[in-house]
Amino acid sequence: MKLELSRVVQGCRLGLLTGLGKSGQHSLEVPGCLLYTRCATVPHLTQDTLHTLRDLPSVTQVSVDSLAEHHEVLKEFKEGVRKFAGLHDTVLFCSLHDSANSSPAGHVTNKTVSVWGSGGRIELTVARFMAIQAAIQPDCYQSMADGETWQAGTSRKRVRKAVDRTLAHLDECLALHQKTQELKQAEIFGVVEGGDILEERLRSARETAKRPVGGFVLDGFHSAAMDQDVRVQLIKATSAELPQEKPRLVLGVGCPDEVISCVEAGVDLFESFFPFQVTERGCALSFNYTIDPDPETAGTSTPTVLEFNGEMPAVKKLNSNGDENMTPYEMNLKDKRYQDDFRPLVEGCSCYCCKKHMRAYVHHLLVTNELLGGVLLMLHNMAHYLGFFKALREAITSDRLQDFKNRVLHCREGI
Amino acid sequence: MKLELSRVVQGCRLGLLTGLGKSGQHSLEVPGCLLYTRCATVPHLTQDTLHTLRDLPSVTQVSVDSLAEHHEVLKEFKEGVRKFAGLHDTVLFCSLHDSANSSPAGHVTNKTVSVWGSGGRIELTVARFMAIQAAIQPDCYQSMADGETWQAGTSRKRVRKAVDRTLAHLDECLALHQKTQELKQAEIFGVVEGGDILEERLRSARETAKRPVGGFVLDGFHSAAMDQDVRVQLIKATSAELPQEKPRLVLGVGCPDEVISCVEAGVDLFESFFPFQVTERGCALSFNYTIDPDPETAGTSTPTVLEFNGEMPAVKKLNSNGDENMTPYEMNLKDKRYQDDFRPLVEGCSCYCCKKHMRAYVHHLLVTNELLGGVLLMLHNMAHYLGFFKALREAITSDRLQDFKNRVLHCREGI
Repeated sequence: MKLELSRVVQGCRLGLLTGLGKSGQHSLEVPGCLLYTRCATVPHLTQDTLHTLRDLPSVTQVSVDSLAEHHEVLKEFKEGVRKFAGLHDTVLFCSLHDSANSSPAGHVTNKTVSVWGSGGRIELTVARFMAIQAAIQPDCYQSMADGETWQAGTSRKRVRKAVDRTLAHLDECLALHQKTQELKQAEIFGVVEGGDILEERLRSARETAKRPVGGFVLDGFHSAAMDQDVRVQLIKATSAELPQEKPRLVLGVGCPDEVISCVEAGVDLFESFFPFQVTERGCALSFNYTIDPDPETAGTSTPTVLEFNGEMPAVKKLNSNGDENMTPYEMNLKDKRYQDDFRPLVEGCSCYCCKKHMRAYVHHLLVTNELLGGVLLMLHNMAHYLGFFKALREAITSDRLQDFKNRVLHCREGI
Repeated sequence: MKLELSRVVQGCRLGLLTGLGKSGQHSLEVPGCLLYTRCATVPHLTQDTLHTLRDLPSVTQVSVDSLAEHHEVLKEFKEGVRKFAGLHDTVLFCSLHDSANSSPAGHVTNKTVSVWGSGGRIELTVARFMAIQAAIQPDCYQSMADGETWQAGTSRKRVRKAVDRTLAHLDECLALHQKTQELKQAEIFGVVEGGDILEERLRSARETAKRPVGGFVLDGFHSAAMDQDVRVQLIKATSAELPQEKPRLVLGVGCPDEVISCVEAGVDLFESFFPFQVTERGCALSFNYTIDPDPETAGTSTPTVLEFNGEMPAVKKLNSNGDENMTPYEMNLKDKRYQDDFRPLVEGCSCYCCKKHMRAYVHHLLVTNELLGGVLLMLHNMAHYLGFFKALREAITSDRLQDFKNRVLHCREGI
């Protein structure tokens, strides 16, 4: 695995991650996102439906929490999650937790971390964690980490302990990794912890960078954990300690404005749980990310301009499915105003849902709890989110990041 | 619309229903089934996913209960449900109730019947019923009917009243139909009522047959309504009163053994809510309907023989989703025995699910409530059910109905 940077503009790293997968034939453009899944499936979608989407990421994310309970079955199956789940040719990245769920805190010990499966808490030692990885057979995976230091008011002592534990887990993971036949061609991503304490972040980054890792996971930066300014400052400082040629994946950040600020701070990769959360609350991503191709006419509308229909939320919290989590980037299709709106979700969108269906029909499906509603929203939201990342890369390529930011962040001023 | 019978064997009518749809270019083989939908969508499936199925019926069924609440929106839309729901080219049949749901009894009056939408009860006069049909714009639809006479112990007087009311509703529907521009090319199916009283069934059939209807709906014969022998006798007697060249659709009958006995009694068409009910309880249809192509070797296994995995239920009831409704035609994939079963749902099945996925993975999706589980089961169950109807027609064609019955009913003896 190698990250080839083609340019760095205003802190944004544009490049290509190459040599991915067992035979090294896959690549992934950065800034970009992994393909979010639950039980190795993008919620609602068959592999064939999924593959009607354009610009699908070549890396699929699975998480230990949804697979740990099936460890024995996967071990017996012997051929890994990719084949177990009938996935098309894809690179598999395995993280510890599903970022769309919140986990109870207070279950970390010196030697263990806990994840929550459908049957409750599962306590993992490094040995068990690595045995599960051997059954999953990912191409890359994050090492076991103590990530419970993001709550406001966590003491410096506790944060230091988390960094120490996470480094110790990484060393143990690396040692077992060497001995595990099933992981021979896989790579470990080291996890950078440190809460909101700068010196711990720097220490965690420096120490992790000394180990033979394929890339870095930036943990504890998710939306509920800290203020956006603090996050950006910490990530910038942390990035400076990390080698340029290795990718950095931030966990738990998905909202478009937060993605942009993280990219400017030096992040390469994101998860894509955000479009799933939007789908779960019956909403459709509808923000505009299309910048005018000619700077001379920037600001005037183009035929492909997307219409903004977001409603301003009073408060934004993470990890629950209520409408109070709505962001300004989406429209609530359960709202009665859409019952006789015969337009596509987003004018000009070329996704399956927008080409075939109207807002009024999707509204009808959602209010009657018809299962196709989620399928259609998931297709649109993934298409829109992937389009956003593609447009972001194009904006960096063409030195138009400020225009892009103006367009995307526009709606946050409520215009 | 015209039914061309090619042969009648042991009471079974084999033929082709032609001249369907606005331009008359569609046809449907009988015995066959309509395509079951809720809100005009086959649950879980996009139109594109649905159309990966072979031998899809050319007639899609929608029901007034799921659309009545959206009457005003449909009326404003002006172009009917087919376009509203983004359906591919298909013939639309509209029935009164969704046979997968049970409705509370006791809400019929001389002039009204009631249906239940997501917001509760909706009382329909013939005028309102017809206004809804004008907004739906089906190609054929059943007339409004008093179907509340199937409960055991319904008095002869009540049954007679239901037959009279249903005939009166039909006459009113026919009168309004003539005046409704949106229904100019549509046809009405008259509804035969009469509970379990033979003379009322005969009267209802005779009187309905005198009216200018396109076909007949046989109501009140669903699984919970009566014993299979009584049903068969009543349908046989009723069929004799109906013109040969018009199709007969029975409501609420979906289980394979009941389908076969109804076909022998003279029924042409069925709904396909049964594979949806099987899907909802986390089960997969797995009964064998493949008869050996060469009668000389009948009884020996063939490469395409399907494996029976059904569990015998103690009791069978209709219209709830508990496992007690399981039939001997299906396997319960939530059962722990499938957690490490790495075979396809049904060996030899060519559906998307069986080609791509294993029982163990579908089990995993179901126990973790992952949404793809329903999508995959629905695909398999529809494919299996459509395959059953095709095999039934082929068995009649080749004079092998008895072999077919032996094969399908086999599992009922628990072998």
